[in-house]
Amino acid sequence: MIRFSTRLAQTEEYYFSKKLKEVKALKEAGKPIINLGIGSPDLAPPNSVFQAIEDALHEKNAFQYQAYRGIDELRNALAFFYKQHYNLSIDPEEEILPLMGSKEGIMLTSMAFLNEGDQVLIPNPGYPTYAAVTKLLNAVPKFYNLDEENKWHPNLEMLQQMDLSKVKIMWINYPNMPTGADADRQKIQKIINFAIQHEILLVNDNPYSMILTENPFSVFQLPNANQVALELNSMSKSFNLAGFRTGFLVGNASFVNAVIKVKSNMDSGMFLPIQQTAAKVLQLEKNWFTELNEVYKKRRQWIWKIADELDLSYDENTTGLFVWAQLKNKEKAEKLADRLLYEADLFVTPGKIFGSQGETYLRFSLCVDIADLQVCLERVQKFKKTNL
Amino acid sequence: MIRFSTRLAQTEEYYFSKKLKEVKALKEAGKPIINLGIGSPDLAPPNSVFQAIEDALHEKNAFQYQAYRGIDELRNALAFFYKQHYNLSIDPEEEILPLMGSKEGIMLTSMAFLNEGDQVLIPNPGYPTYAAVTKLLNAVPKFYNLDEENKWHPNLEMLQQMDLSKVKIMWINYPNMPTGADADRQKIQKIINFAIQHEILLVNDNPYSMILTENPFSVFQLPNANQVALELNSMSKSFNLAGFRTGFLVGNASFVNAVIKVKSNMDSGMFLPIQQTAAKVLQLEKNWFTELNEVYKKRRQWIWKIADELDLSYDENTTGLFVWAQLKNKEKAEKLADRLLYEADLFVTPGKIFGSQGETYLRFSLCVDIADLQVCLERVQKFKKTNL
Repeated sequence: MIRFSTRLAQTEEYYFSKKLKEVKALKEAGKPIINLGIGSPDLAPPNSVFQAIEDALHEKNAFQYQAYRGIDELRNALAFFYKQHYNLSIDPEEEILPLMGSKEGIMLTSMAFLNEGDQVLIPNPGYPTYAAVTKLLNAVPKFYNLDEENKWHPNLEMLQQMDLSKVKIMWINYPNMPTGADADRQKIQKIINFAIQHEILLVNDNPYSMILTENPFSVFQLPNANQVALELNSMSKSFNLAGFRTGFLVGNASFVNAVIKVKSNMDSGMFLPIQQTAAKVLQLEKNWFTELNEVYKKRRQWIWKIADELDLSYDENTTGLFVWAQLKNKEKAEKLADRLLYEADLFVTPGKIFGSQGETYLRFSLCVDIADLQVCLERVQKFKKTNL
Repeated sequence: MIRFSTRLAQTEEYYFSKKLKEVKALKEAGKPIINLGIGSPDLAPPNSVFQAIEDALHEKNAFQYQAYRGIDELRNALAFFYKQHYNLSIDPEEEILPLMGSKEGIMLTSMAFLNEGDQVLIPNPGYPTYAAVTKLLNAVPKFYNLDEENKWHPNLEMLQQMDLSKVKIMWINYPNMPTGADADRQKIQKIINFAIQHEILLVNDNPYSMILTENPFSVFQLPNANQVALELNSMSKSFNLAGFRTGFLVGNASFVNAVIKVKSNMDSGMFLPIQQTAAKVLQLEKNWFTELNEVYKKRRQWIWKIADELDLSYDENTTGLFVWAQLKNKEKAEKLADRLLYEADLFVTPGKIFGSQGETYLRFSLCVDIADLQVCLERVQKFKKTNL
């Protein structure tokens, strides 16, 4: 018998991959499920996308292989984006690598820096892919807790007490998912100093910086970050382009080159029309984000009403594409999520899938239009009347 | 200092990534280099591509995340393609996985099956990525020789004499690159039996099956292949869609599922318009290939003239996108390749980069139009007059 790699033994299919199959089956059985579970932007991408793609299709080399580093135009546009929104100067020649989405960057970065048995600091709660990729490479996730009391930032004293001798990478993610906590620059500066002290690569996964924030954060705004940090950025949420698969790695030339070494053996460049279109979109004016965030603010009001109806508590002062809401009395939330799915036809993500620190929370997505949110509210009112 | 993974220590940047930078620099310095080195199809993709993409862009969910397995329409179209061209029935639900190019498949398959220290049988000459990916995963390449005398197929007696106890994967690639040898079904049947006997996963990398062949080959045409084999296929060469990044993995459900386990942690699905367009193109009639191959046949005549002028020998009875030509007296070819680049402004790939068995060969690409091939011939005639 041909055996699979041992790395698969601890790897499960990604949660949403499994759960969405269940949701699909329920829908096919006639259930009118509304999906509040996943952060896949439903709003239209910028209008200019359509013309940009059509123009690019007729370039002479539109369907030919592209260079691993991406076209100059795209790297220059990302440098412009970092200047315009984060007030940072990034060298487009050496410090930027276009990716097919930032998720790819989690694997590539991990491959470039991890050996088997190395340890990786991973936030709890946090995006499940950090741990999944770590395990796929036979490295070891070491979870660190985020708490509501510390505004969902790492507890530095606790980190300092850990045995850090085998730790190679630390994942952070600000603005934070799933909690919606915005970056606290002072706290993150301390994490940078900690990473320098212990020679740990600090990776900030940063796909939510433009959503419901006033002052977009990049880790490179903080002194000395460039010595130890990489940042993953993405166009999925900022421009409603999740399926377009455009993301970026930003960091010092030496780190970026290490990742290119891996990437050049895994793919053969990005489709030119995608690159050219991404380059145009990255140069949009700030009012694109103002208008986008107006929509999300209105939707969030509705989610808050739904959460109120379910007697959940939440912080109104948060960022990102989700509302993170806790059960009163800190009861576990998974049962409620299941009941909402089976009894009220609402798919909401139980916070537990982001780690044990999320056990008493539900995560609601803002990627649902107001008409559907109205239906959700009605369903929740009915659910409450008959059940709670 | 933050250290890179040891896996990078043995990983070099992909040959073409480095060499094309040199070619680019020469061009920028005013040299009129003609690139006969790389197999990036220069011919236009099927006409239907443009309308298909434009139509797909306006689908409601065009820019949203897609499922890891790809849309049904695409997997069904690939099943149709396998029926029409290889006369094979493949289950589109379970036995097909769309990929962003078949190169990605080399990494995903290797990750799904290899542990550190496992050995991998790799053809010499062969596509350099097989060994590069193997080394990236800290597994061990074991090269097996292909010889012109055996029509560039593995020597089974030699394989049987090797210590196979640690061998996990064997890479084959028929129709073959760089040599152009078409699949010899009898010889490959023996390799399948060998793989069954030794419990080795046999992967046929199959991007050239539609180019200059009479009878398109798939490994699954042979009895029992389904027990031990996977096949990578690609639209890059068959449809002039190299930059579009569309490839496929085909094999039994258990193997395909193992690869999906890896893939679901690395990306978030393929751009819907790419999937829908690929689905349309896969259903093209056979005359698409007839016309495509007419062009390549004419170009090959010119390459043969160029090779004659350089006093090289080659087999006229070959397939694929390249002419594989040997120096008379079996001299090493790298020096000639360098002289052609620096003295005649022609970039030709030295066979050595595919392994030591390619040392005395040059590889010429058919992805150059007749006008340029005429110039190449003139330059080679002039080069010969002044040098040989």
